[in-house]
Amino acid sequence: MGEIMVQIGEELRKETMTVGDLAKQVEELKRQVENVKPGAEDRISIVVFSGDLDKVLAAFIIATGAVAMGMEAVMFFTFWGTPVLRDSKKKAGGKDLMGKMFGFMLPKGRDAIKLSKMNMAGMGTAMMKSLMKKKNVASLDEMLDMAAELGVKIYVCEMSMSLMGFKKEELIDYPNLEYVGVATFLEQAKNSKVQLFI
Amino acid sequence: MGEIMVQIGEELRKETMTVGDLAKQVEELKRQVENVKPGAEDRISIVVFSGDLDKVLAAFIIATGAVAMGMEAVMFFTFWGTPVLRDSKKKAGGKDLMGKMFGFMLPKGRDAIKLSKMNMAGMGTAMMKSLMKKKNVASLDEMLDMAAELGVKIYVCEMSMSLMGFKKEELIDYPNLEYVGVATFLEQAKNSKVQLFI
Amino acid sequence: MGEIMVQIGEELRKETMTVGDLAKQVEELKRQVENVKPGAEDRISIVVFSGDLDKVLAAFIIATGAVAMGMEAVMFFTFWGTPVLRDSKKKAGGKDLMGKMFGFMLPKGRDAIKLSKMNMAGMGTAMMKSLMKKKNVASLDEMLDMAAELGVKIYVCEMSMSLMGFKKEELIDYPNLEYVGVATFLEQAKNSKVQLFI
Repeated sequence: MGEIMVQIGEELRKETMTVGDLAKQVEELKRQVENVKPGAEDRISIVVFSGDLDKVLAAFIIATGAVAMGMEAVMFFTFWGTPVLRDSKKKAGGKDLMGKMFGFMLPKGRDAIKLSKMNMAGMGTAMMKSLMKKKNVASLDEMLDMAAELGVKIYVCEMSMSLMGFKKEELIDYPNLEYVGVATFLEQAKNSKVQLFI
Repeated sequence: MGEIMVQIGEELRKETMTVGDLAKQVEELKRQVENVKPGAEDRISIVVFSGDLDKVLAAFIIATGAVAMGMEAVMFFTFWGTPVLRDSKKKAGGKDLMGKMFGFMLPKGRDAIKLSKMNMAGMGTAMMKSLMKKKNVASLDEMLDMAAELGVKIYVCEMSMSLMGFKKEELIDYPNLEYVGVATFLEQAKNSKVQLFI
Repeated sequence: MGEIMVQIGEELRKETMTVGDLAKQVEELKRQVENVKPGAEDRISIVVFSGDLDKVLAAFIIATGAVAMGMEAVMFFTFWGTPVLRDSKKKAGGKDLMGKMFGFMLPKGRDAIKLSKMNMAGMGTAMMKSLMKKKNVASLDEMLDMAAELGVKIYVCEMSMSLMGFKKEELIDYPNLEYVGVATFLEQAKNSKVQLFI
């Protein structure tokens, strides 16, 4: 075994170091590097469960803000969040009684949703909307346009669509909108840096 | 110092590389690998703060979905989530007046909880339950069985139990259910890939 | 090329290992270590969107609990969470009509906020407060003091301040309280181990 005198470390201490010693150290390093789990991707994944105007707005502000910072953003619309994506100008036929009832009772798109607090028979919601305009805060319509342009990914929960009897043809036009199950969302979420349930 | 001609890199450039040089590089690599923080574990940690039927269902759908994907899942029931775990067939004695009042006012288990929206004096909740059956969406009862079978871990917040005057003997039978403080939950959550507050 | 007989691995098998071979392995390790993304920092980032007493309490219990465990904690107060930070003893002049209306309608600080459930015209909230005292659960006042002492960082959403017409001089005194946009919060959140939307 060929031995060579070497200097290593900041202390510059002298040590005998053979190629065999080094090889063992390299093997140990390889094992350690393999065990390091990969870090999460630079993405935010948001479950939009709520259908309240204030919470949906917050979800879009966060998602578009994240994309503006160079992150990816995925929004998963489920339960009460699903009717927010209805297009008030579109109609869907072939619904059963339950589907018709839900279609009637649930808000028809983003113009029909209300604040979670202080709605006060619609007055609070109207006040908030006028205030947002005055203070130059983007409306939900503008948020959706911005999200589409920035490439915010929208997933719609298949189970919620089925449960509420919604048809794909009554939802808004949004680039690359996808209908997925919870597993597809979780796959994205678990490799994201940030996850929120709103 | 023994010098040897070697070829390294994709460019296959010729370099003089001594064992001493290599040893320094290996030392530097060791330092870097030690500084790499370990990645999070493949687990989802959910705070179930809400006691609304729709939100508790969502929590179970996400938790069981995660386990089905090979992840671990931990649910921490706190505040309004705690009464969801009461067993309507069990009774607990020795409560003080406040405990009795809370026991009376809070829902007695998962059959008594309601939708966060559109409850409409129970009609909306009943409608949603019948709809879920029709669309083959698992009920909360079935979800709990599935969660138990899949090994979803349930933590119950000790402070909430004390605050609401609940006794352990009035909670459901669930495998390895544990009563813990917020620190135990946070310990799990901070090393999880996903955390949600529902 | 100088060849040396070395023993590596647990099997202690004999192999021919040159400095050139080792150099290639070290190069490959360097590449791998560089590609490892840094783990998240030991911090929890909480969006306090809700202004309900129970949810704000939960946020503080989690944040202070995290700091007690040695983590950092950042709370971002936005939307309904913002009025919780008003100081009931302070006044702010120079508000426009909308600002005055919001100032009047929104709760004036932490003593004025209510439970999200079972408020029952204030009776439930009062009952919960007295119960918390009895069970030695810290009140929101005590929580804020504790958070300040422990160094929990409080961010206030600039957009919410502007939207609700709040002035900085009507907010509580809290060490190093900062007014920030969503980007500043996201920057903290994306490098945190835990993120919650409450």
